[in-house]
Amino acid sequence: MNKHGGYFGEKKDEVLDFSININPIGFPNDIYEVIMRNIKNIVRYPEINGKTAREILAKHLSLAPEQLIMGNGASELIYLFARSIKPERVLIVQPTFNEYERAFRLEGCDIQYFITDKNNDFKIDINKLINTIDTIKPNVVVLCNPNNPTGIYTDIEKVHILLDKMKDLSGHIFVDESFIDFTFKKSLVTFIDKYPIFILRSMTKIYGIPGIRLGYGIGSANIIEMLNKIKEPWTMNSMALELVQPLLEKKDFIVNTNKIVQKEKEYLCSELKKISSLEVFCDQGNFMLCRLKSSDVKLLKKKLLKRNIYIRTCEDFIGLDNSYFRMAIKLHEENEKLVDALKIILEEE
Amino acid sequence: MNKHGGYFGEKKDEVLDFSININPIGFPNDIYEVIMRNIKNIVRYPEINGKTAREILAKHLSLAPEQLIMGNGASELIYLFARSIKPERVLIVQPTFNEYERAFRLEGCDIQYFITDKNNDFKIDINKLINTIDTIKPNVVVLCNPNNPTGIYTDIEKVHILLDKMKDLSGHIFVDESFIDFTFKKSLVTFIDKYPIFILRSMTKIYGIPGIRLGYGIGSANIIEMLNKIKEPWTMNSMALELVQPLLEKKDFIVNTNKIVQKEKEYLCSELKKISSLEVFCDQGNFMLCRLKSSDVKLLKKKLLKRNIYIRTCEDFIGLDNSYFRMAIKLHEENEKLVDALKIILEEE
Repeated sequence: MNKHGGYFGEKKDEVLDFSININPIGFPNDIYEVIMRNIKNIVRYPEINGKTAREILAKHLSLAPEQLIMGNGASELIYLFARSIKPERVLIVQPTFNEYERAFRLEGCDIQYFITDKNNDFKIDINKLINTIDTIKPNVVVLCNPNNPTGIYTDIEKVHILLDKMKDLSGHIFVDESFIDFTFKKSLVTFIDKYPIFILRSMTKIYGIPGIRLGYGIGSANIIEMLNKIKEPWTMNSMALELVQPLLEKKDFIVNTNKIVQKEKEYLCSELKKISSLEVFCDQGNFMLCRLKSSDVKLLKKKLLKRNIYIRTCEDFIGLDNSYFRMAIKLHEENEKLVDALKIILEEE
Repeated sequence: MNKHGGYFGEKKDEVLDFSININPIGFPNDIYEVIMRNIKNIVRYPEINGKTAREILAKHLSLAPEQLIMGNGASELIYLFARSIKPERVLIVQPTFNEYERAFRLEGCDIQYFITDKNNDFKIDINKLINTIDTIKPNVVVLCNPNNPTGIYTDIEKVHILLDKMKDLSGHIFVDESFIDFTFKKSLVTFIDKYPIFILRSMTKIYGIPGIRLGYGIGSANIIEMLNKIKEPWTMNSMALELVQPLLEKKDFIVNTNKIVQKEKEYLCSELKKISSLEVFCDQGNFMLCRLKSSDVKLLKKKLLKRNIYIRTCEDFIGLDNSYFRMAIKLHEENEKLVDALKIILEEE
């Protein structure tokens, strides 16, 4: 099982946790009240498959409820998809979130990687990817868009080529859009009726509520029905389901979030690029990938933790190694602390 | 998927829901405060596998943490067990909760039933069960103890014979003790080191918190390790995990609950037995099984709902039919309303 998911050490209340990619603002303030008002409802079972929340969400996204499935976080749906499709061969675009591989591996799938090139800033060379697909003939291609941890967003035009190819092969495309709300980029949601695509979404990250577990998946009614057939009952808790409507009303919260994220990313990129021993990958999302040019990040992690700062080292990502780390974009004061600490530590070496 | 889990109709706030087997008192009052105090923590991921909560619970039960696994409600663990063991053949003691069958069926298992006899008040004839096991040679036997919906508790002495038999066959016994806290009966927990047993427990029912999803499983370190190997990450939400310690401190709450449940069960049994068209099965647990001697319960359900009372009809339980219904034991005033309504409806017929 994944060993990550934030800092859980002894200094829990002091440590600035840059290791998890959550909204830097936290969750919308008035969500407190919604939760307090709804506490009494925990005495009832949640709806078995979150029917009401699904209808609300579908309406919000201009979809039919049959094109949507609720999940106990996005992670339930990664495993549910793998179990529903049970593909023989899966091609995962790497480096990326490692739960995809675990989910398909548990189903006994043959897992293959398409590893994007650092020298191309981890962007997908679509011709190479298509060639790989032609050779491997996978039943499922997994793409995280924008990608965790590289931040790379693959344009619709490129993905379109991938969709056509997988349709020709009668395969599926699994696209994780968990971080798309932190970008101004287009979702693939408009393709669900024409292509065999399943889109994963998270409400955990943009609304700052990872503790409460809330995700959903989008696809054709056919794909969603396949998943529903084997979905386990009562996986979403009642608080998560009751938050769907109030969260969707928080449009200003998202606009405000993205203003901050953009501004802070610019700040972090320009400051971190001044550190000569550091290589910085600035693209989409509320996080950034960095690389130490000539040393192991383990020591850096240790030194930062002494200063109450926690980062995500990336040695367990396929295609990366122990010179990479990922950091979330947080509020200005917090980011400043990180920049200062990195400068002191890396420039003294 | 299961279609039950309580009343979700239009009259949600008026209807007395006797269909779900939850603590009649609700949840301990001061849990409100605990939840309110912890709302801020939903901005963090829960621990991936609920490590801290597991340690607290293990200590409370005098177990090692390695003998315990946390679940998103008990239902996650039913499916996880089925997926881990992937038995060829499963014998389910029926009538019982129907998620066991679904979980094993999804793994492609051959499902067989041992149906207890109404004429024996649905008690297990252990010699017959052992004979059936000798014939069928199942890899897993599933027993709910006390059983939902019959309320039958099978004594340790009888279960011991079953345990010996399944050990001889190198099989497993899956025992659901979700309702044991509503009895003064013995758990099988002391057998986990000597027998291939997995015990399912729920904190949802006794503490009145089905909305928040909290269950756990107990077994030898070997069995628990098998489950952990394929367990999905972050399935338990942070509120559920944070409630474990404060809930375990509520010993008076459980004592008080069981005083009420006992007293009310006696009241309900004696009153309902006065209705000549009704057959009443009074045994363990916070619920009772009833049978209409000569008619379909559908009409009764309809008539009760007109009076804002909702019951669980049992036509979907193997070994029962459309003459059975199950009712939870609620508070005295509520039970009186049910008794009065049943008397009026059934005695006017």
